[in-house]
Amino acid sequence: MNTIGVIGLGVMGSNIALNMANKGEQVAVYNYTEDLTHQLMKKVDVQEITPYYEVAEFVQSLETPRKIFLMVTAGGPIDSVIGSLVPFLEKGDIIMDGGNSHFEDTERRYDDLKAKGIGYLGIGISGGEVGALTGPSIMPGGDRDDYEKAAPILTKIAAQVDDTPCCVYIGPKGAGHFVKMVHNGIEYADMQLIAEAYTFLREKLHLSVDEIADIFETWNQGELNSYLIQITAEILKKKDELTGLPLVDVILDKVGQKGTGKWTSIQAIDNGIPSSIITESLFARYISSLKEQRVHAKDILSGPEADKLLLDKEEWIEHVRKALYMGKICAYTQGFTQYKMTSELYGWDLPLKDIALIFRGGCIIRAEFLNIISEAYEAQPDLNNLLVAPYFAEKARDYQRGLRKILCEGINSGISFPCLSASLTYYDSYRTGRSNASLLQAQRDYFGAHTYERTDREGVFHTNWQ
Amino acid sequence: MNTIGVIGLGVMGSNIALNMANKGEQVAVYNYTEDLTHQLMKKVDVQEITPYYEVAEFVQSLETPRKIFLMVTAGGPIDSVIGSLVPFLEKGDIIMDGGNSHFEDTERRYDDLKAKGIGYLGIGISGGEVGALTGPSIMPGGDRDDYEKAAPILTKIAAQVDDTPCCVYIGPKGAGHFVKMVHNGIEYADMQLIAEAYTFLREKLHLSVDEIADIFETWNQGELNSYLIQITAEILKKKDELTGLPLVDVILDKVGQKGTGKWTSIQAIDNGIPSSIITESLFARYISSLKEQRVHAKDILSGPEADKLLLDKEEWIEHVRKALYMGKICAYTQGFTQYKMTSELYGWDLPLKDIALIFRGGCIIRAEFLNIISEAYEAQPDLNNLLVAPYFAEKARDYQRGLRKILCEGINSGISFPCLSASLTYYDSYRTGRSNASLLQAQRDYFGAHTYERTDREGVFHTNWQ
Repeated sequence: MNTIGVIGLGVMGSNIALNMANKGEQVAVYNYTEDLTHQLMKKVDVQEITPYYEVAEFVQSLETPRKIFLMVTAGGPIDSVIGSLVPFLEKGDIIMDGGNSHFEDTERRYDDLKAKGIGYLGIGISGGEVGALTGPSIMPGGDRDDYEKAAPILTKIAAQVDDTPCCVYIGPKGAGHFVKMVHNGIEYADMQLIAEAYTFLREKLHLSVDEIADIFETWNQGELNSYLIQITAEILKKKDELTGLPLVDVILDKVGQKGTGKWTSIQAIDNGIPSSIITESLFARYISSLKEQRVHAKDILSGPEADKLLLDKEEWIEHVRKALYMGKICAYTQGFTQYKMTSELYGWDLPLKDIALIFRGGCIIRAEFLNIISEAYEAQPDLNNLLVAPYFAEKARDYQRGLRKILCEGINSGISFPCLSASLTYYDSYRTGRSNASLLQAQRDYFGAHTYERTDREGVFHTNWQ
Repeated sequence: MNTIGVIGLGVMGSNIALNMANKGEQVAVYNYTEDLTHQLMKKVDVQEITPYYEVAEFVQSLETPRKIFLMVTAGGPIDSVIGSLVPFLEKGDIIMDGGNSHFEDTERRYDDLKAKGIGYLGIGISGGEVGALTGPSIMPGGDRDDYEKAAPILTKIAAQVDDTPCCVYIGPKGAGHFVKMVHNGIEYADMQLIAEAYTFLREKLHLSVDEIADIFETWNQGELNSYLIQITAEILKKKDELTGLPLVDVILDKVGQKGTGKWTSIQAIDNGIPSSIITESLFARYISSLKEQRVHAKDILSGPEADKLLLDKEEWIEHVRKALYMGKICAYTQGFTQYKMTSELYGWDLPLKDIALIFRGGCIIRAEFLNIISEAYEAQPDLNNLLVAPYFAEKARDYQRGLRKILCEGINSGISFPCLSASLTYYDSYRTGRSNASLLQAQRDYFGAHTYERTDREGVFHTNWQ
């Protein structure tokens, strides 16, 4: 009998199946069109993988309770596959969705299958193609009992850091996919922050792409150590085969997106959660896609006149490094606040400490930094905001100067740093004990009779302003 | 026979009914609970208003084709009222929803009623209680034929500016409610920009609330002339009766919101439309509501050390004025870009020039400024972005210095200006002909094989980066 089944044999699904086989599982595989199945079987010669071309046979080949892992395009295809499986399943069987499904779709599917006695796990997986094969970060949500049944396989195929698998039970129903969604939002922000640091080094310090590559490589040896910093160094070193130029210089400056980042912003906005840094990283992508308009606007919209030359380059490089680290602190703080606030809203009890730990390996945002986040939650499990954790409060005290300097240079040079800028704005807003919001609330009461509270006594008040 | 019916007699509905009666219409009124009907009839003694206590009688009292105006809480209540009306209606009758319904709900209701031969207009109304009575700004969407039937009444009750009613046919189905929704988003941004100008005057120039009130009054005589500037001056003059302090100083600094602002951001984000300024105004409200956390963070998170005293106050006040105007240009540009891009997406053909014109009276964002926006679209109906219109490009050339100065002062003083900051970021991003987005696209291609385009030739490329 096979110990697990995988449906959907695109690159991600094939690699997950191979990963499972490499860890000693007996894997049944099935794909809606046979060609991908043939492709996989031609490419690899693994005893542990058996192909099936009929859903019924595929299902019958599995040990009970059956464990079926879907790596199918999010949306309608998931529902079709589930529909085709259900007639052959028995109570207690478990379907797992390892794709980037919207967590609300996962909740709906969970409820439908629960009513039929079938378990459903929504599993966030990060790591791209390579991670899928060699060990991704895995975020499973659903019933804990169902997770326990799948855990021996999931923890085995996950990335391992310090002998700990990057896989932990996240919470009920859609919680796993939710955590993956916000992970991707954090990833957008982190990428944009790195791009802004690159812009400063290039535009303001007039460094060459090679010199910047070296700086990122150096940074990757220190507290900024992370997958994204590492690949940025590699990218900047790559030369275009056609022109000999740095490859980054011939790539068109339009960025795409696949949905999870925007879902993250939308969920935050819909639930009253501040998420300005991730959201600015999205808007930066949107503006990038207006390439023709930007080229047109360049000659019409003027910027500042003279630009100051920055002399002590080493000092400025260090300001950039600190600005980037400070931006990163703010971006991750917003992401983890989104976990915290949503967890309270939905009663999920998300394990923030463990989420930080499983992000240390396999996934795109893996970084040294996540150990510190995990420690902050270990010390204060109810921490509302990472910024006020001692380590980060102290870092912010030292590093904010770099961020402030970089931003002022940008402003005076006409170079935009949307995410670095949103990071500082967030930091300074969050530490404003008494804000101008009282004026806004007065305006709302003036024109809409929306009432207000007072600072000095309980109650709800309305003023006849005119 | 009555010429129009109004259902829903809260403050807004009662005032709309009175407005219609004042303009010579015979108005049938109905409310689900009788008490509000009694209240209205007790308060006013107007021959032109006739109360009904049964839906059937209410409907039968109306001239055909019947015109029924709903001022009912958005959401489920609208559907209930429509459900209770339909059995008594005939083909060709028209239901109008004057509330803040989500435009997608309006589209659904339009389709349902269309199938029954009943017309449906989703009508955005802005102006608050006073506007509803004396003349609001009116944004009707639906079939043009149906609008034409209701137009004689709608144009009469609308605000009038230069003898032109602030009411114009917006477009099909949900277009009217969509335009109202984004209007509210712009309103959020405008309010926040004003609050930030106030903060600078207060915190950096150490002016008293009275002095700031005078400044706003002066500004209201110039190009910043607008309802929101005017009421800000009035608000700042108001003293608290209990303490004698400026009332704004005893109001708690927590701002609420009712949904349309966040819908605006969500719609923008979902459709790839840059809307950073409105979105930052939302996040500012969200952070304001974390009052207890802010007070706690104030003592833990440090800011910059010494704060420079600003000497030439008059000069700085002028910088603030220019920064505010520049912020306003960027915020309205984003709002009108949202109209333009959504119009293209949905094939609505929104009349941008006319939308600017009907915002000049009745509504919360009414301002001199809107004449200029309207003229920009008159000169270039296909204008992609207001910033590149000659008037605004020139203003931006002159005024950006003020904005840059204010922002740097804020950054170096630890005071956050989220919307002013997002305004400049947007301006500088939009005029960046060649951006760092190429690095982002390279990162995406590195870890996710998302491919990229090149600057120098057609096609889609993927690099094996490692």
